[in-house]
Amino acid sequence: MRRERSSENSVIARIVTKGTGESAGLVLGIGDDCAVFRPAEDEDLVFTTDLFLEDRHFRRTDHSAGSAGHKTLARGLSDLAAMGASPRFCLLSLALPDWADDAWIDEFLDGFLALARRAGIPLAGGDLARQERFAADIVACGGVPRGLALRRSGAQAGDWIYVSGQLGGAALGLESGTGAAWERHLRPEPRLDLGCQLRTWGATAAIDVSDGLALDLHRLCLASGVAAVLDGIPLFPGASLQQALHGGDDYELVFTLPAPLSICALGDLPLTCIGRIRNGEPGTMSLGGQALVPAGYDHFQTP
Amino acid sequence: MRRERSSENSVIARIVTKGTGESAGLVLGIGDDCAVFRPAEDEDLVFTTDLFLEDRHFRRTDHSAGSAGHKTLARGLSDLAAMGASPRFCLLSLALPDWADDAWIDEFLDGFLALARRAGIPLAGGDLARQERFAADIVACGGVPRGLALRRSGAQAGDWIYVSGQLGGAALGLESGTGAAWERHLRPEPRLDLGCQLRTWGATAAIDVSDGLALDLHRLCLASGVAAVLDGIPLFPGASLQQALHGGDDYELVFTLPAPLSICALGDLPLTCIGRIRNGEPGTMSLGGQALVPAGYDHFQTP
Repeated sequence: MRRERSSENSVIARIVTKGTGESAGLVLGIGDDCAVFRPAEDEDLVFTTDLFLEDRHFRRTDHSAGSAGHKTLARGLSDLAAMGASPRFCLLSLALPDWADDAWIDEFLDGFLALARRAGIPLAGGDLARQERFAADIVACGGVPRGLALRRSGAQAGDWIYVSGQLGGAALGLESGTGAAWERHLRPEPRLDLGCQLRTWGATAAIDVSDGLALDLHRLCLASGVAAVLDGIPLFPGASLQQALHGGDDYELVFTLPAPLSICALGDLPLTCIGRIRNGEPGTMSLGGQALVPAGYDHFQTP
Repeated sequence: MRRERSSENSVIARIVTKGTGESAGLVLGIGDDCAVFRPAEDEDLVFTTDLFLEDRHFRRTDHSAGSAGHKTLARGLSDLAAMGASPRFCLLSLALPDWADDAWIDEFLDGFLALARRAGIPLAGGDLARQERFAADIVACGGVPRGLALRRSGAQAGDWIYVSGQLGGAALGLESGTGAAWERHLRPEPRLDLGCQLRTWGATAAIDVSDGLALDLHRLCLASGVAAVLDGIPLFPGASLQQALHGGDDYELVFTLPAPLSICALGDLPLTCIGRIRNGEPGTMSLGGQALVPAGYDHFQTP
C-alpha cells in the first residue's frame, strides 16, 4: 500500500488553500523568507512559543489529529489571554513523522485553523521538517495597549485571587477518557475575552493555568514577591481536589484584583474568588489553613 | 553514574545567568507568559521560524553542541538578512533528550548566545520540553523601515543577479569533515550587514541560500514570475559545481539589482554577478546555456 505523502511545497499549498486568515497588520504572510507585520500605533506586542510533542503532550493512539491541532494553537492563545492581549498573528513549525499521512495532516490543520478563525488570528508562516515523532511549535503574537500588558509580577498584599471556570477537568478527562471532561481535555478554550476584560477591571497580575493551579499560582506569587491564602477551588464536575490543584491543561486564568468583582461570571464563564494575596515568604501558599505545595508538571522531573 | 540533569526552572535560570541581552524595544524578556516588545515608529517587523533537528539538521556524533547552538540561531538570522531587516529579538523552543547533560546544554547555549551577542539580538523567551531527540525552533524578529522589506517577488527582466561569498563550502565540509569548508559548515555567518545594504542599493528581490542556489533562486524566480540566465557561480575553494548549485547550508544571499554594482565586495565579503533576470516561463533557469534543474533539499523528498 502506498502512503499518501506530500512534498514540502504541497503541504504548504494545502495550508494556503484551506485559508490562513488575515488581519489588519499582516502585510505579508506565508511564502517569503519572513512574514511582515506592521504594528499599530500605541500598541505593545506580546509573544509566546509553546511546544506540542508526541508522547509528551499527546498520544496519537488516544488523541485525534483535530484535537492535536486545536491544542497546539490553544496553548499559545492561552498565554496571550494571560497577558490581556488580543490575537494578531501566529507562526507554526511542524516536524512531521512518516506515520502522519495526508489525512492526518489535513485533520490536524482543520483543528488548528478552525480555532484560528474563531479567535481571529491569521497563520502568517512557519517551518516544516521531518522527524520520527510529531512535534509542533506555535508562535503567537498578541497586541495590547501600550504599557498595559498584564504580568505575573503585579500582585499585592490584600488583592483578591480569582480563577475562571472550573479546575481539574482536563486531568479528569485524561484519566477517564470519556464525557465532558475528556472533551475538555481535547479542546480547551483559551480565555481571550476574559484576558482583555481583566485590563478594564484593573487586574494587578494574571497567569494561565497550564501546569496546575498550585504550580502556576506559585509562579505568580514568586514573581510578585507575595504569598497566597486560598479558601477553596471550583471543581470540574467529578474532578478531585488533587486534579484541580495539580492537574495540567485546564488553560483557565488565575488573576488578582485590588477589589472583589460585583459579578460572578463573564458571559457563561464562571469567575470565582478563591482567596487573598498576603505578605509572607514569596511563593508560599495555603488552602483551608493547610500548606499548599507547588507540585505540578515539570517536563524535566516527571518521569 | 548519575546524570547531571537540571530541572526546567534551572535550565531557564542558567540561560538568564549567561546573559540574554537587551534591545531598545524589548520591554519584558524571559519569565512571564509572554515577552513584551514595543515597536519603533515607522518600522515594519519581520518574523521567521526555523527548526533545527537532531539527525535531520545535525548529528551529535559529528557536530559539537556549540555548532548546533550557533546554527540554530544563524538559520533565523539569515532569513532576517534576506528581508533586509535588523535583528530585534528572538525566542527559542528546545526539546531536550535524556542524553543532553548539563555540559552539552551549556555548550549549546554558549554557541547560541555568542552569535546572539555579536548580532545584537536578545533572547526574549521560548519554551522547554523533553523529547527523545534534540529539537530546537528559533523564532527571529527583525525590524525594517516601513514598506521596505525585501521580498522574493520583486525581480524584473533585465535585473542583475548577484550572490554573496562563495558557494558549496558547507556541502564540501559535510563531505570532507575537515578544514575551512568544515568550519564553514559548522558556523555559517548570516549576512546581516549585506541585507541592510541591499535596501540602500535598491535591490528588487532577495533570498538566502539555505537549500542550495538552484532551488532557492528557482523560488525567487517563481515568486517574481521571471526566468534566470546564469553565467557562472563563485565556488568555495575545493567545492564542485554540483555542491555549489545543490548543496544546502551556505546561508549566502542571492539578490537582484536593476543596475550592476560598482564594487565587488562589501568589506571582506565578495559580491559576484552570476547572471541576469529574463522574461520567460517563471522559474526556468539556465547556466552556461544548459538548463538548470531546481534540485535541492526538500525535507519530504530526501530519503
